[in-house]
Amino acid sequence: MQGSPFQGFEFEAYMAMKAKKINKMLDEAIPLRHPLKLNEAMRYSLLAGGKRVRPILCIASCELVGGDESLAMPIACAIEMIHTASLIHDDLPCMDNDDLRRGKPTNHKVFGESTAFLAGDAFLSFAFEHIACNTNNVSPDRLVRIFAELSSVIGSKGLVAGQFVDIESEGKAVSLKELEYIHVHKTAKLLEACVVCGVIIGGGNDNDIEKVRIYARFIGLLFQVVDDILDVTKSSVELGKTAGKDLVSNKATYPKVMGIDEAKNFAYHLMNQVVQQLACFDTAKAAPLYHLAYCIANRQN
Amino acid sequence: MQGSPFQGFEFEAYMAMKAKKINKMLDEAIPLRHPLKLNEAMRYSLLAGGKRVRPILCIASCELVGGDESLAMPIACAIEMIHTASLIHDDLPCMDNDDLRRGKPTNHKVFGESTAFLAGDAFLSFAFEHIACNTNNVSPDRLVRIFAELSSVIGSKGLVAGQFVDIESEGKAVSLKELEYIHVHKTAKLLEACVVCGVIIGGGNDNDIEKVRIYARFIGLLFQVVDDILDVTKSSVELGKTAGKDLVSNKATYPKVMGIDEAKNFAYHLMNQVVQQLACFDTAKAAPLYHLAYCIANRQN
Repeated sequence: MQGSPFQGFEFEAYMAMKAKKINKMLDEAIPLRHPLKLNEAMRYSLLAGGKRVRPILCIASCELVGGDESLAMPIACAIEMIHTASLIHDDLPCMDNDDLRRGKPTNHKVFGESTAFLAGDAFLSFAFEHIACNTNNVSPDRLVRIFAELSSVIGSKGLVAGQFVDIESEGKAVSLKELEYIHVHKTAKLLEACVVCGVIIGGGNDNDIEKVRIYARFIGLLFQVVDDILDVTKSSVELGKTAGKDLVSNKATYPKVMGIDEAKNFAYHLMNQVVQQLACFDTAKAAPLYHLAYCIANRQN
Repeated sequence: MQGSPFQGFEFEAYMAMKAKKINKMLDEAIPLRHPLKLNEAMRYSLLAGGKRVRPILCIASCELVGGDESLAMPIACAIEMIHTASLIHDDLPCMDNDDLRRGKPTNHKVFGESTAFLAGDAFLSFAFEHIACNTNNVSPDRLVRIFAELSSVIGSKGLVAGQFVDIESEGKAVSLKELEYIHVHKTAKLLEACVVCGVIIGGGNDNDIEKVRIYARFIGLLFQVVDDILDVTKSSVELGKTAGKDLVSNKATYPKVMGIDEAKNFAYHLMNQVVQQLACFDTAKAAPLYHLAYCIANRQN
C-alpha cells in the first residue's frame, strides 16, 4: 500500500463502525418470535460474526455516489441474509456436508437438517421482504431495479447455478473456464450486486454503475483465489472452517488448476487491476472500496 | 350450485383456456440453458401439470377489477414457481420424504437430492426476477407492494413457518389452533397473495383488496380441509400422490382432530361463506372466483 493515494484512511475503525451498525440492524431484523426454533436457527447463522464484507461494500458504494448510509442499510442487511442462506444451504449434508462455519458448528449440526434447510429458505424470501418494508425515501423505480438485480444473482443464473456446477464437478477434471464459471456465479455475482445496489440506492447514474460492476468483478475473482490459496496453506483452526477440504474432495480450485505460485501471482495481478479501476473516483470516497479489496487480498482466514 | 347467480358460466372452458396460456408462459420462462440438468429439474416440476389454481386465481382477481390478463401473467407465473419450489422442498427426504407428486415421481427421485434442493432454491428467487423483468405498464409503486406481499407469504411468517410447525408437530397431539396455524401458513397465505397481487396489478383500490383477502382466507381453509378429507377417503392412484400418509405419519389433519363428518360439515360452511363474500361484486366478473371455490370444495384429487 506504500505510495498509494488511499494511505492514511482509518480502514479498521471504518469497518468496525459499519459492522457494529449492521450487526445491530441484523439483530433487530429477526426477533425471537413464533416459531421460536426456526427464528433461533436464523439468528444463529446471521449473527455468527463474519466480517460483513458484503453489506459494507453495499453501504460504501452508496456513500461513493453521495448517498446516506441509512438509505442502503436495508439492502445491505438483505444481502447479508442472502449470503447467510447460501452458507446454510451449502453446508447441508446433501450439499458440501460441512461441520464448521466461522469457527462454530454449522446450522444443521446445531438445529437439525430440516430446520437449517427451512432457515435458509426463509432468508431467501425474507431478504426481499426486509427491503420492501424498510426502505424509505427511495423512488419505487430504483427499488424495482434493485429487486431485479438481487433476484437475478441468486437463482439459476447466479448463486444456485454456481453451487450446482460446483457439486457436479466434484471428482472430475475441471478446466479453468469451468472453474471461473463456478466462482463468478457462487461469489462474484453477489459482490457485484452489493456495489450495484449500493450505487442505485445512493442515486448513482448508469456510468457509476458500470464502473463499480467492473471493480466488483475483479474483487470477486480475488476473493475466490485467496479463499482457495488459504484452503491449502492454513489449518482448520486458523480458518475457522475445515481446511484442506477442497483437496480431499477433488473440488476445483485455482491452486489445483494453475499451481499455488501462479495462483498467488494471479491474486497480485487482480489487486493491481482494482487500483486502476478506482483511480477515476474521488479518492476519499473510494478509500473504503480500495481498502476492502486490499483486505480481501491479504486476509489470513 | 342450483339457483346460484353464477350458473351458466363456462367454467371448464375458462380454466382450460387460462391454464393453456399459463403453461405456455411457464414453458418459455425456463429455457433449457446451462446448467442443463438444473433447468431440466426446474422444468420437470414446473410443467408437471397441476390445475394452475393459483395463477388462475391471480389472473381472475386482476380481471375482477378491470385489469387485463397480460398485466397479471408474470406475477401469476411467479406464484406458480413459488408454489412449485415449496412442493419440491416439502417432498425432500429431510422434509416429508414423499415419492409421488401429481402422479409422477418427485423431483429428487428423478434428479437426485442436491439438484432437487437447488431447483427449489432457484425458483424462490427466479420468481422475483421473473416479475421484475417481465411486468410492463404497471407503476413501480404497485410492483413494490407486490414484492412486499409475495415475499412476506414465503418466509418465516408464511410458507416456511407453516412447514416448520407442521414437521415439528408430527407424532404429537395437535390442537385445532395449531392445526389452523399450519394451514394458514402453508396454504392460505399464498392463495391470499394470489388474489391480492391480482387486484393490485389490475388497478384495484384498498377496498377491493380487503374483499378478496377475506375471500382468500375462506378458500384457503376450504382447500386444506378438502385435502385432508381426500387423504383418508381416496387411494394413491386416485390422488396421484401417496394416500393415507397423514394418518400413518401421525400428522395433524382436520378429520383427525374433528372427525370426518364434522370436517365435511366445516367444508360446506366455508363454501357458504365464500358465496356471501362474492355477493357484493359484479356477478359476471366474480364468476371465475366463485367457480374456483366450488371446484376446490368438490375436487376428487
